Amino acid sequence: MINIAIMGYGTVGTGVVNVLEKNKELITERVGSDINIKYVLDLRDFPNTPVQDKIIHDFDVLLQDDEIKVVVEVMGGLEPAYTFVKKCLQAGKHVVTSNKALVAQYGADLFHIAKEKQVKFLFEASVGGGIPIIRPLVTSLSADEVEEITGILNGTTNYMMTKMFYEGANYADVLKQAQENGYAEADPTADVQGHDACRKIAILSSVVTGKRVDFEEIHTEGITKISAEDMQYAKTKNMTIKLLATAKKNAFGIKAIVAPFMLQATHPLYSVNDVFNAVFVRGNMLGEAMFYGQGAGELPTASAVVADIVEAAFGADKSMLASWTTEKLALRDNGEVRRTFFVRMKGKRQELESIVKETFRVSEFLSVEGLDEEFAFFTDRMTEEEYATKAKEHSDILSCIRVEM
Amino acid sequence: MINIAIMGYGTVGTGVVNVLEKNKELITERVGSDINIKYVLDLRDFPNTPVQDKIIHDFDVLLQDDEIKVVVEVMGGLEPAYTFVKKCLQAGKHVVTSNKALVAQYGADLFHIAKEKQVKFLFEASVGGGIPIIRPLVTSLSADEVEEITGILNGTTNYMMTKMFYEGANYADVLKQAQENGYAEADPTADVQGHDACRKIAILSSVVTGKRVDFEEIHTEGITKISAEDMQYAKTKNMTIKLLATAKKNAFGIKAIVAPFMLQATHPLYSVNDVFNAVFVRGNMLGEAMFYGQGAGELPTASAVVADIVEAAFGADKSMLASWTTEKLALRDNGEVRRTFFVRMKGKRQELESIVKETFRVSEFLSVEGLDEEFAFFTDRMTEEEYATKAKEHSDILSCIRVEM
Repeated sequence: MINIAIMGYGTVGTGVVNVLEKNKELITERVGSDINIKYVLDLRDFPNTPVQDKIIHDFDVLLQDDEIKVVVEVMGGLEPAYTFVKKCLQAGKHVVTSNKALVAQYGADLFHIAKEKQVKFLFEASVGGGIPIIRPLVTSLSADEVEEITGILNGTTNYMMTKMFYEGANYADVLKQAQENGYAEADPTADVQGHDACRKIAILSSVVTGKRVDFEEIHTEGITKISAEDMQYAKTKNMTIKLLATAKKNAFGIKAIVAPFMLQATHPLYSVNDVFNAVFVRGNMLGEAMFYGQGAGELPTASAVVADIVEAAFGADKSMLASWTTEKLALRDNGEVRRTFFVRMKGKRQELESIVKETFRVSEFLSVEGLDEEFAFFTDRMTEEEYATKAKEHSDILSCIRVEM
Repeated sequence: MINIAIMGYGTVGTGVVNVLEKNKELITERVGSDINIKYVLDLRDFPNTPVQDKIIHDFDVLLQDDEIKVVVEVMGGLEPAYTFVKKCLQAGKHVVTSNKALVAQYGADLFHIAKEKQVKFLFEASVGGGIPIIRPLVTSLSADEVEEITGILNGTTNYMMTKMFYEGANYADVLKQAQENGYAEADPTADVQGHDACRKIAILSSVVTGKRVDFEEIHTEGITKISAEDMQYAKTKNMTIKLLATAKKNAFGIKAIVAPFMLQATHPLYSVNDVFNAVFVRGNMLGEAMFYGQGAGELPTASAVVADIVEAAFGADKSMLASWTTEKLALRDNGEVRRTFFVRMKGKRQELESIVKETFRVSEFLSVEGLDEEFAFFTDRMTEEEYATKAKEHSDILSCIRVEM
């Protein structure tokens, strides 16, 4: 029997208890031993629940119990999660977490301790909820140099963009709807501003490079400025708009960004809709691959957490595990990165065409029926800095969206 | 240094040599040791190639060389592959294969030997080419009971169905095109009749159940009867037609089939086009997930083979590996399975409507502009046997395609 402790009995914690109970038999068979939840650490009590007798309020109880081999951190947030996880690893316990903030901020330190103590620090559920992505990147793409990871990594914003695409709704209405049916939180900042996706792409970039990525260095824009009109233009080109979190490597270095992008219908991420997440990967040998699934939710996320518990409990002494060092990954300055931009501009195309053509090296003009007081265009490829400088001179720009080629 | 031998220097074998060479540095780092190709076994010589000095024609040379720790079988076919692989495992060598015929036919026996000899028998590349699927099913879905696996597992036929969908082309023309540009073989039987996809779904079903699946028991139909007209009807319902290989579990047992299916636009497999493959998985906790990528091709397949070489060479003594026993998995009789059928019928709807409605319990009639001498309909759900019995009485049925709900 392997004793484990769960820290945090919120949505994911409840899910973990449920998965371990519902699939008890097959999990026991796979691990080769029973998994027993000995403690559930939470500030609250949970009378009349399956865990009522396991609830503890004092972290030291589980820390000092040598029977506890695996600790599951599903509290979220940086503290006290960081202190607790650190102490568990130092005490020689395996730790499984779904906490992206923790992994993005302190991953390198925690891997270091885990290595020293010869225990595992696993975090599959921190990115993409139930989508198997961390482990496949390490064990299935082990023959490849990963040249690109581009993900739809936030379910809330993808639900919103999908609604805006299919229903022509505007941002404010869609946000309200998402909040009403529980897909967006009362304070949606972390989702709609891209901060959540940013931490996730930082983690994925660290996994494939083995170096620490400072997520604060990743240029991050949310979806708050995307309008129903932007979506109308996208549709005229059979494109859509998605919040992408992406890291790409080429001869110039590694560029990373979180921002809304216009996407061609042929791109595998184009048809990833609603609250689904997906991670597109390009390996230098494998070529294109994509992992798709439910990026959040009690059971999908818990499924990933329990798969990590199984790995920890299975007890292989030598495994290929995701980790990175404290060495910082150098990211290219976003200003240097060359892109094509979609630009919407107030005014009549006939009057502005020649000046706009010259300034932005327009590759194509776009128009939407009914939007007579404006027009739009795709620029030629130029650096972000060049675009920004030029855009400053044109006060009549209504919106600008990057284009994923 | 870890010495390996490659059996077969065809497309995949060449790819394996290329991947090991191109990504030498990072592979060495991940394994913690150099991987050295000591022998390449082939009947032919390959003067002026990178392997000219490594070519051997005698299997016993590699078998009796104790320095060879990992043998890569990329010859294809059942013999001599089976005999060679068996001897290698018995000699205590790890074996990596991309050979779906071998794994589908002799998997259980080979796992048994591998277990006895405490070596690994790995076969990631045998299904879905470069798509990571075997390993994630075992290590990432370890908390789940897999209730469904449905795949587009054959690139040739998916290329053909995509062409038929987008270009309205007919079967014969598309096959010719596919042969001309190398996507279909001169003898396309194994692909277009579904035999290739059948072996692959048999392997996937064995991986998730741990039991041997007799692929000859899986009802298998190819795409040879699919017509441009069928595709036209599908389009009127915003559906497409794909060759699916699927295994599903419910309270009645496990049903498996390989056949063309009509697919809704909302299904994740709907937009898997051209030579791409994808595997849709439903776990009882994870929910829906999909793995997408290049199902064939020199480098993608070799990438999967080399990832297995890395796993074998990495040398963990205890790993969660895919395998199954000789115990046979009982599949439901296909005749008992209930489905909705799309049926095209010769004649005027007005004249036949009442009799057809009663016989097939029609849920919806369909018509296509220009196809005036025929009509089509979806039946209500009924067993395959019931449909077959009824269909026998109607000599004017032009085609019938199952519907994936």
